[in-house]
Amino acid sequence: MSATNKKVLIAIIGAGGVGKSFLSQLAALSARRPSPALSLVYISTSRKALYENDYSAISPENVLDTLAASSRAPPALPQVVEYLASAPEKVVLVDNTSSQDVADQYPAFLSKGISIVTPNKKAFSGSYKLWQDIFAAADASGASVFHESSVGAGLPVISTLNDLVNTGDKVTKIEGVFSGTMSFLFNSFAPLSGAGGKWSAEVKQAKELGYTEPDPRDDLNGLDVARKLTILARLAGLPVESPTSFPVQSLIPKALESCTSGDEFLEKLPEFDSEMEETRAAAEKEGKVIRFVGSIDVASKQVKVGLEKFDRSHPIAGLKGSDNIISFYTERYGSNPLIVQGAGAGGDVTAMGVTADLLKVLARI
Amino acid sequence: MSATNKKVLIAIIGAGGVGKSFLSQLAALSARRPSPALSLVYISTSRKALYENDYSAISPENVLDTLAASSRAPPALPQVVEYLASAPEKVVLVDNTSSQDVADQYPAFLSKGISIVTPNKKAFSGSYKLWQDIFAAADASGASVFHESSVGAGLPVISTLNDLVNTGDKVTKIEGVFSGTMSFLFNSFAPLSGAGGKWSAEVKQAKELGYTEPDPRDDLNGLDVARKLTILARLAGLPVESPTSFPVQSLIPKALESCTSGDEFLEKLPEFDSEMEETRAAAEKEGKVIRFVGSIDVASKQVKVGLEKFDRSHPIAGLKGSDNIISFYTERYGSNPLIVQGAGAGGDVTAMGVTADLLKVLARI
Repeated sequence: MSATNKKVLIAIIGAGGVGKSFLSQLAALSARRPSPALSLVYISTSRKALYENDYSAISPENVLDTLAASSRAPPALPQVVEYLASAPEKVVLVDNTSSQDVADQYPAFLSKGISIVTPNKKAFSGSYKLWQDIFAAADASGASVFHESSVGAGLPVISTLNDLVNTGDKVTKIEGVFSGTMSFLFNSFAPLSGAGGKWSAEVKQAKELGYTEPDPRDDLNGLDVARKLTILARLAGLPVESPTSFPVQSLIPKALESCTSGDEFLEKLPEFDSEMEETRAAAEKEGKVIRFVGSIDVASKQVKVGLEKFDRSHPIAGLKGSDNIISFYTERYGSNPLIVQGAGAGGDVTAMGVTADLLKVLARI
Repeated sequence: MSATNKKVLIAIIGAGGVGKSFLSQLAALSARRPSPALSLVYISTSRKALYENDYSAISPENVLDTLAASSRAPPALPQVVEYLASAPEKVVLVDNTSSQDVADQYPAFLSKGISIVTPNKKAFSGSYKLWQDIFAAADASGASVFHESSVGAGLPVISTLNDLVNTGDKVTKIEGVFSGTMSFLFNSFAPLSGAGGKWSAEVKQAKELGYTEPDPRDDLNGLDVARKLTILARLAGLPVESPTSFPVQSLIPKALESCTSGDEFLEKLPEFDSEMEETRAAAEKEGKVIRFVGSIDVASKQVKVGLEKFDRSHPIAGLKGSDNIISFYTERYGSNPLIVQGAGAGGDVTAMGVTADLLKVLARI
């Protein structure tokens, strides 16, 4: 059973922050573990692609420069499916994008026996039909699909939830801070010791430090957290239709929804500082702090995302920096949940989840 | 690649607390997942065994009663190796004992292609030679060996550390509370709010509540924690020779080492309450609490187990009940560690780690 002569072909879509970290982890992995030999046969961004019709290996050295210099545009996705499906060896597709278009093709890739590892949330938090199609295709072909980094980056969140469910535990509740941005914002705005600044100033600072999306509204609308909750709820057995089918509190004031740019939004945000100030003060009166959390109550099938008050001794209140925390309450674990905590964003730790998933696929091939 | 017709044979050694929980999880698993078919062909305790020479399946219904009524004594372990090695299908051995004798046979089982899942710490914390022999045998035959529950029961500790190491992260430090007994004792003796009782009274109460071994000295000597640290240190790359090759603080007073029974020990322990009281008071003076922890400093190759003082805001200080907490400090995770926390003992959660490991083996077979 020794895998000495095996070769596995790797195809990568996406070469942004996560993609770059993944490429360097892949190179280190190949150097450390010569078997099975990993042969990069396809890599593309939205504008460029590198691949040969005979599936010959692309040199990993300076591959991003070679890709940038390539004169080949990426083929349409159905063609990529066909190209990889006709490969002479097993193929693993690494989707390092956050593209819905790529996600929509997962059932096609999987049904052709192409395994997938990815941090792309869209595939697992889009329509429930896509979710069903993805896992049905994987079941039918025997291909694997792993997406650890779709929630909490490299933290063992998806694998832990799957282990709980697959070994027959009953998950009763999942609760946590699922956004590094929101974690940083509220750990600064309503800290356990000292006083936080004005809300708008905290948002501005978080943006300047690179903790938010280029347009901070993409964090503040809560959709990113809602997508993660959708994924976890589905894994816990709830057929959640979409990330907009349950209550999600947006921190974008109604009056600022029509701003045409993130800059305009940031400029006008101070006018609404008093609202957040009131929420903070109300919690303080009870000796509590506010945090932006997501929760799934499995028995009552309630999923929600928004601001909640927490005792200062609660693990969610004590988070640091931009850390995530995820608590799994289950029948076996009783009143004290199983907790996973740590950095939930960043290129290296996100790529780590993808690389760990790749290792799982390789062990199965 | 659909595994519809596959059959995998299961052999179980040990039917104590973990073994019973595992049997019930195995039955539920077989009911939920008909493929591959899991066929129980061998089960034994130290006194009895059930198996047929033609490997016919043992009915899982009331198997423990059938086992108790069996007139067959368990064969010698080398014979069990031979019996399972000659089986007509792939075999997974589930070792639910804490026996060094069984552990010593792992290289023999593995070299015959028999995969192993187990919570047995002895195999991985005994001599470094046994550790090397185990993984060399598994590498050579392609059989798998998983032992998630050897540290922190079902908590994702071993798998997380393996993922960190195998994806190329550099683990710099591992620190935590690795014993449910020690956690309970110090969360009661030096609580964050309120005052703890006398040390000897806390030990007595912990024993009465079932949180200690029948003889509490088996917890207080620190060896259980030292075994877990040995396993984690080795996985992190340190060739630790044995659990006695680094400093381990025993909480058994020198003068009580010669007690002939646990009862005599508990009777005399109050004479030494002042020592622990001083340690607690010294920490309180600094605004800290004492906890019994293990730590591995990878760079300096230092492993140690014993009492440490922690700021009251430290996650280790804030543990509840008999929870474990394990912090992984790594290059990628930076100053805030990846933390796993929750119940680290108990039949159901320990068996869960074993069942999850079994699922991993099945995915590879």
